[in-house]
Amino acid sequence: VIPRWLQWLLAPAAGRGQGEHATTDRPEASIHELCSTLLAGDGEASAIVISSEILRRYRRMTAEHKADFFELLQQDFSPDPAAIERAAKAYLNSHSSSDLLRLSQAVEAPRQELLRRLNLAPRSTPVLVAMRSDLLRLLKQRPHLFAVEADFKHLLSSWFNRGFLSLRRIDWNTPAHILEKLINYESVHEIRGWDDLRRRLAEDRRCFAFFHPAMPDEPLIFVEVALVKDIPARVQPLLDSRAALMPLKEADTAVFYSINNTQLGLRGVSFGNFLIKQVMEELQIECPWIRHYVTLSPMPLFAETLRAALVGQHAGLMPAQIDALLADWESELRARSGQRAAGQALLTLLDLARPGDLALLTEAIVPVALAYLTLRQDRTHVTDPVASFHLCNGARLFRINPFADASAEHRNSAFGCMVNYLYEPDQLEIHHEAFVSGNTIALSPALEKLHARHRAILPPG
Amino acid sequence: VIPRWLQWLLAPAAGRGQGEHATTDRPEASIHELCSTLLAGDGEASAIVISSEILRRYRRMTAEHKADFFELLQQDFSPDPAAIERAAKAYLNSHSSSDLLRLSQAVEAPRQELLRRLNLAPRSTPVLVAMRSDLLRLLKQRPHLFAVEADFKHLLSSWFNRGFLSLRRIDWNTPAHILEKLINYESVHEIRGWDDLRRRLAEDRRCFAFFHPAMPDEPLIFVEVALVKDIPARVQPLLDSRAALMPLKEADTAVFYSINNTQLGLRGVSFGNFLIKQVMEELQIECPWIRHYVTLSPMPLFAETLRAALVGQHAGLMPAQIDALLADWESELRARSGQRAAGQALLTLLDLARPGDLALLTEAIVPVALAYLTLRQDRTHVTDPVASFHLCNGARLFRINPFADASAEHRNSAFGCMVNYLYEPDQLEIHHEAFVSGNTIALSPALEKLHARHRAILPPG
Amino acid sequence: VIPRWLQWLLAPAAGRGQGEHATTDRPEASIHELCSTLLAGDGEASAIVISSEILRRYRRMTAEHKADFFELLQQDFSPDPAAIERAAKAYLNSHSSSDLLRLSQAVEAPRQELLRRLNLAPRSTPVLVAMRSDLLRLLKQRPHLFAVEADFKHLLSSWFNRGFLSLRRIDWNTPAHILEKLINYESVHEIRGWDDLRRRLAEDRRCFAFFHPAMPDEPLIFVEVALVKDIPARVQPLLDSRAALMPLKEADTAVFYSINNTQLGLRGVSFGNFLIKQVMEELQIECPWIRHYVTLSPMPLFAETLRAALVGQHAGLMPAQIDALLADWESELRARSGQRAAGQALLTLLDLARPGDLALLTEAIVPVALAYLTLRQDRTHVTDPVASFHLCNGARLFRINPFADASAEHRNSAFGCMVNYLYEPDQLEIHHEAFVSGNTIALSPALEKLHARHRAILPPG
Amino acid sequence: VIPRWLQWLLAPAAGRGQGEHATTDRPEASIHELCSTLLAGDGEASAIVISSEILRRYRRMTAEHKADFFELLQQDFSPDPAAIERAAKAYLNSHSSSDLLRLSQAVEAPRQELLRRLNLAPRSTPVLVAMRSDLLRLLKQRPHLFAVEADFKHLLSSWFNRGFLSLRRIDWNTPAHILEKLINYESVHEIRGWDDLRRRLAEDRRCFAFFHPAMPDEPLIFVEVALVKDIPARVQPLLDSRAALMPLKEADTAVFYSINNTQLGLRGVSFGNFLIKQVMEELQIECPWIRHYVTLSPMPLFAETLRAALVGQHAGLMPAQIDALLADWESELRARSGQRAAGQALLTLLDLARPGDLALLTEAIVPVALAYLTLRQDRTHVTDPVASFHLCNGARLFRINPFADASAEHRNSAFGCMVNYLYEPDQLEIHHEAFVSGNTIALSPALEKLHARHRAILPPG
Repeated sequence: VIPRWLQWLLAPAAGRGQGEHATTDRPEASIHELCSTLLAGDGEASAIVISSEILRRYRRMTAEHKADFFELLQQDFSPDPAAIERAAKAYLNSHSSSDLLRLSQAVEAPRQELLRRLNLAPRSTPVLVAMRSDLLRLLKQRPHLFAVEADFKHLLSSWFNRGFLSLRRIDWNTPAHILEKLINYESVHEIRGWDDLRRRLAEDRRCFAFFHPAMPDEPLIFVEVALVKDIPARVQPLLDSRAALMPLKEADTAVFYSINNTQLGLRGVSFGNFLIKQVMEELQIECPWIRHYVTLSPMPLFAETLRAALVGQHAGLMPAQIDALLADWESELRARSGQRAAGQALLTLLDLARPGDLALLTEAIVPVALAYLTLRQDRTHVTDPVASFHLCNGARLFRINPFADASAEHRNSAFGCMVNYLYEPDQLEIHHEAFVSGNTIALSPALEKLHARHRAILPPG
Repeated sequence: VIPRWLQWLLAPAAGRGQGEHATTDRPEASIHELCSTLLAGDGEASAIVISSEILRRYRRMTAEHKADFFELLQQDFSPDPAAIERAAKAYLNSHSSSDLLRLSQAVEAPRQELLRRLNLAPRSTPVLVAMRSDLLRLLKQRPHLFAVEADFKHLLSSWFNRGFLSLRRIDWNTPAHILEKLINYESVHEIRGWDDLRRRLAEDRRCFAFFHPAMPDEPLIFVEVALVKDIPARVQPLLDSRAALMPLKEADTAVFYSINNTQLGLRGVSFGNFLIKQVMEELQIECPWIRHYVTLSPMPLFAETLRAALVGQHAGLMPAQIDALLADWESELRARSGQRAAGQALLTLLDLARPGDLALLTEAIVPVALAYLTLRQDRTHVTDPVASFHLCNGARLFRINPFADASAEHRNSAFGCMVNYLYEPDQLEIHHEAFVSGNTIALSPALEKLHARHRAILPPG
Repeated sequence: VIPRWLQWLLAPAAGRGQGEHATTDRPEASIHELCSTLLAGDGEASAIVISSEILRRYRRMTAEHKADFFELLQQDFSPDPAAIERAAKAYLNSHSSSDLLRLSQAVEAPRQELLRRLNLAPRSTPVLVAMRSDLLRLLKQRPHLFAVEADFKHLLSSWFNRGFLSLRRIDWNTPAHILEKLINYESVHEIRGWDDLRRRLAEDRRCFAFFHPAMPDEPLIFVEVALVKDIPARVQPLLDSRAALMPLKEADTAVFYSINNTQLGLRGVSFGNFLIKQVMEELQIECPWIRHYVTLSPMPLFAETLRAALVGQHAGLMPAQIDALLADWESELRARSGQRAAGQALLTLLDLARPGDLALLTEAIVPVALAYLTLRQDRTHVTDPVASFHLCNGARLFRINPFADASAEHRNSAFGCMVNYLYEPDQLEIHHEAFVSGNTIALSPALEKLHARHRAILPPG
Repeated sequence: VIPRWLQWLLAPAAGRGQGEHATTDRPEASIHELCSTLLAGDGEASAIVISSEILRRYRRMTAEHKADFFELLQQDFSPDPAAIERAAKAYLNSHSSSDLLRLSQAVEAPRQELLRRLNLAPRSTPVLVAMRSDLLRLLKQRPHLFAVEADFKHLLSSWFNRGFLSLRRIDWNTPAHILEKLINYESVHEIRGWDDLRRRLAEDRRCFAFFHPAMPDEPLIFVEVALVKDIPARVQPLLDSRAALMPLKEADTAVFYSINNTQLGLRGVSFGNFLIKQVMEELQIECPWIRHYVTLSPMPLFAETLRAALVGQHAGLMPAQIDALLADWESELRARSGQRAAGQALLTLLDLARPGDLALLTEAIVPVALAYLTLRQDRTHVTDPVASFHLCNGARLFRINPFADASAEHRNSAFGCMVNYLYEPDQLEIHHEAFVSGNTIALSPALEKLHARHRAILPPG
């Protein structure tokens, strides 16, 4: 017989909850029952109704109930250990392909199929992305849910495959509800209202985003580009909403000055590299006279790393190394700050930031920043996450710009330093290969010279 | 260093193959090298170039080379047995979640990730669907490739999830290149050219299809609906391209007279049930006065099964049972055919099909057809695949129509018999549950009566 | 031979103005020459080039040169008096159809055909609309250009025929560049930035506009609608950008609170009546539970007319009549204001606007406002232009709301008074006929009672 | 009071025609009443209802009733002679601008405004175009309706201004209902079904059409283009639906082989010249390697004119001239045909068309055809209408191709002769000017030579 709660679900809306009697007669199914039924089914059409109902309830849950829901996925929709054991033993015995297939079916958590079925109804995908976002936030308190999270990530990686994404230009003709999302999502350089946004979408600016067909109103990642003359050393002129328009034909440089992933729920499902590459291709067609493709990027962990290094708490960089890098300005730094160690002296001066010190600081900070930016973590990563991203993409570390960003936030995280990474279309693969194969980081001639000078001190980059 | 073949790929088109020297210098990479590089990469942008190149080559391959390609996927991109062994043993020891995660990663064939990366470039999905279609055809000769096929199916099931599909109405405003595909794909009742098609899309007809965003020009499955008066017993009037238009308001019945899956490469990735349910919803909104939703369906294995049963080669149905079902007409059948056994007599008459025998045959064939249609295979299947589909959807077996289709093809497969399955919106779930829970098949009162009469003889339905 | 200036026009862009020689060789055609050539042509394809060139030049002209251009149209592209004389005499003689056709061709100014040809190139129509807008502004200084203006109006009336317009809903999904135009064009109740706009496009608001296919980015006229509970007596709650959302199902009234024509160049080419009627139809479909369609409208000439009347300078309303209308509150008004005549006393109090006087003023002002609103000008007009528009559309004068608008602008023009006009779908034609046939103005029962009481004093309405 | 018939119109649909009483009470308005009311109105919203009703009735009228309707427009909606007389006399007296405006208003037939108002409802424009088409057919029997026709033409010329049209490419992605219209409308070279159409829309073919926003499903005029190698001398290879595809890069010639106006109701509202020019521009962008833009055009009146000339009934061409043109082949022609006069001999041979005569005929017919093609009618016209169109567009008469079209129809009208007109982008204006200024027709060198030889005989071309 058809279960009571499904009767309830399938009953005409008018009949639901009418009077006390009705309610008693048709108790609502628990979320557990709903999930079990959805998973037990054979793809029958009612699955859409059930999956919609589960998602509808999820959206109304408190944080606490959501946590319960993830615990449910962990406890009741994990693979069956006994079945795995049987299958593993059978495979270890036979090493046959069919036993392997059985084993691989045994280890796949039933919640994977459950999540796929939760996507049956239209407009479900955004809810599943939001679910993973909730789960990622929860993971710090409940690390034992990592296997549930792994299943979410596996599924979303498959669904948000690059081949399903489409690149769209965002400009002043774009519907307002999407533009509004740019304002909300921009986290590198805050958009201060609609006038600011309009300047960022003017004729000498470009903005592109990736969209997925199941989330047509959600830019998944977007990049903001300024078309300017010369590679910029400071960010505020790019952000000035009252700056005069640059005639397009006079621009020779495209600056990627802000890249934003918008969906926490898609963390680790990466498409930033594809975005930059494809936007470069679009621009090469539209403005073939552009000569440089370059970023103006933050160094998010610079200040933190430097402070840690100076007290000897950073493995890759030691107080002595920093002092050595600062040898040329040592006496000067000491004199002005009253500190004995050059590294501490630099830090003190940076924190105080007197105008009179600017020239000195500008010169002194570059070798330290270069040391930081080339600090390796592993084969494909350096310490700075932004540097990792661009270097892995095949970009060249082109220039370090002290005092490039006057905003409080970036002064705090990197003493206002910003970096230009240069994207040279025909060098990207070579630099990428060189970077991931282990040692070489592509530098501009100026930085190469600096690096050569300090080779003995600097970590291998 | 960057490998030679990739240099070749990344070289400007102009430089490729220029002179003998160039060719010698830059040997083309093998498909194996390409696949290995694609899989080894870290999601860098060149992956798009490589995946496009692999697909471009695949499309030009001969059948033989395609077979080699699938063998390659089997031999070199299967999971590593040693790694599985290690992971299996570790899990058997610890039963820990992290060892389980490791085991599940070890058993996943690397070709799954390879296939996901082959989808990086736009317009790749149709090629991957075509690949599976090639592979399915090949499987008969090379059954050992079943694990490769399983990976394709797993991936496509995830990508072609119902939530990503959109329903579109097909009519005379639809672009010609899509309409042409209907002509090519229709396999139940052939569309004989554009005039025939036009009649099938006229005001008293409906056609709906599911589309996937990555294959916007390909109807994945489509259903043709005729809006008529009364539940039809014959198909030719529905297919008559010169039939007069039925005023929409006079129609009381929507007949689903043809459902076609168009992509062999999506076999087993089922959405037919969703299609029928959603089309019913569309029609309920557009034509709320329609009272019956019904099919006029073929019985593809009826003749074959009956012949096999009469020589005792069908497990579910025996010569004696058939003779018993025909007891009422036994003498008559014998007299006309000269055969001694009633079953053989029926078959002889059906093959000869003289007009004078029609009335007799019409009555005699129904109980045999009912026996056939209700022959169970397992919990969710009866012998007839079309019956399985509709009964599992929750439809009711409404009427068996002898001589419903005069076409040579259907006369051959089912002596021209066709079946009406009735879709009653508020009964679908109940019938579905009853069917998949094991025993009950929903019948119309008339068939119920017939069934009751023969209950002792008929298989349990 | 092909004229020199056309050679210039048709020369490849690269060849234009290259060196002094080129310039001397190919003098630019005058705008007069261009217009003459365009008009003389036979519809050849170069006409598009010439018309584009004329419009390109027009857009760059100073106000003075534009005036010259209109003078040119007046002097050189008016009908030929001699030809008219000949044709008129011939017709007066013969009264034949063919002489009539000739006469009608003779009186049509050649500039009409010129204007039609100026529309040959894509994107010309907006320029022609802007031309008329320039011309209308110029007409005060140069009234002799009225015949040129009449030709513009004649042509634009034909092109902007209702049948060519399409109604589009404007909401938060609309492209930003169109939304921005709403902000710029709204002149009844200023839109104070994007947050204000967003509130006006929220779920309990509606906005609709007419568009013409040749100006797809320009809303020609738009109406803003608030869905509320009860017919509103004050406008500020409707404009409050922080007002809570009204659940749609609780609304019983649709308030048309702002209607804006956006194109001065289309003055007198009216479609406001069609807009309101069609928006009502849309709302009746979307929200069939809405019971009242009503405006909250300004009285733009009320204060001005009242002041004029009190000094005896308004033909329809005299100081004595106003005093008579105020008889009930006469002593009270005198006491508070120190004025002897009731009318002057009212005015003084209105200008001072002390809170303590509100109750008195509220009651006193209504009969005066009613007298003003029902002051006839001619068959289809009353004195108040907004009242004319709504009454001619068939709306009912429903309620006069004193102190309905606290904004400085409307306090100035109407002491803050606003009017509800009620649109009753099945009464519109009857009221329209009654209004344009001469005498009756449809009033609500309350206003009808007030009117009856003052019938002897009030002008016939 | 609101008139009875309008009450009828405005009554809810349910109330119409209910019982005999209702019918008696609410007699239907006559078409005359409806037109008068529509014209008398002040643009009130009910005008849309009335105009829709008029058009609805028109569509159901018999040919006879339609004729009555046009007579009505002639008799009751023509200008008032008395008013014209008054205005004409006033103007003759004063010659003032305002009297001129009044006169021009007096001579404009009220039916012009009526027609504009008939366009108020959506989807009215196609009906008005169809009206003019009916009227044009009727004009032969009722020439006195010419003034009504002139008003239709005036209005449609204004509405179907080039600036409102959009060019769209037609290909296999175009909706079927539009493609079907191509099949129906093609009258130069019949499209024989969908397979033929598909070949005409294949990759080495192009088809473009103009559309008007008020008739989005109706191609107003379309041109078919074949991309081929070399300027073609025969049409059948272009029309062969089984011809192999030409690789686009190998094509050097774009052949405009069929141009069709589709709407009789837009006769004289010309846009063919704009279409060819714009299609050339599209092709220059898409296929910049194309070197020749050329037609392969019929000579619709050639046979008819030649026959008339030979009996001396054609003013421009006389038997003696024809004989002189044929002097070179005179004896040969006589010998084979048995006719004495060369012209008659040619005609006889053409009608018999024996294969053995082909070479002779091919040479002999060209000078005669050239004489025919260059026969002037007036400043902008030659005798052949197709030649008039292309020469006036500025094309060059490039080559005369005997036996270019083997179809019965074109053999009949022009003995199978076809003409190439060459469109040279930078010569079009020069040739156009030369043509319309009077005498010169641009010829290819070969035809120029032939023309020079026969200058004494040929008419001035």
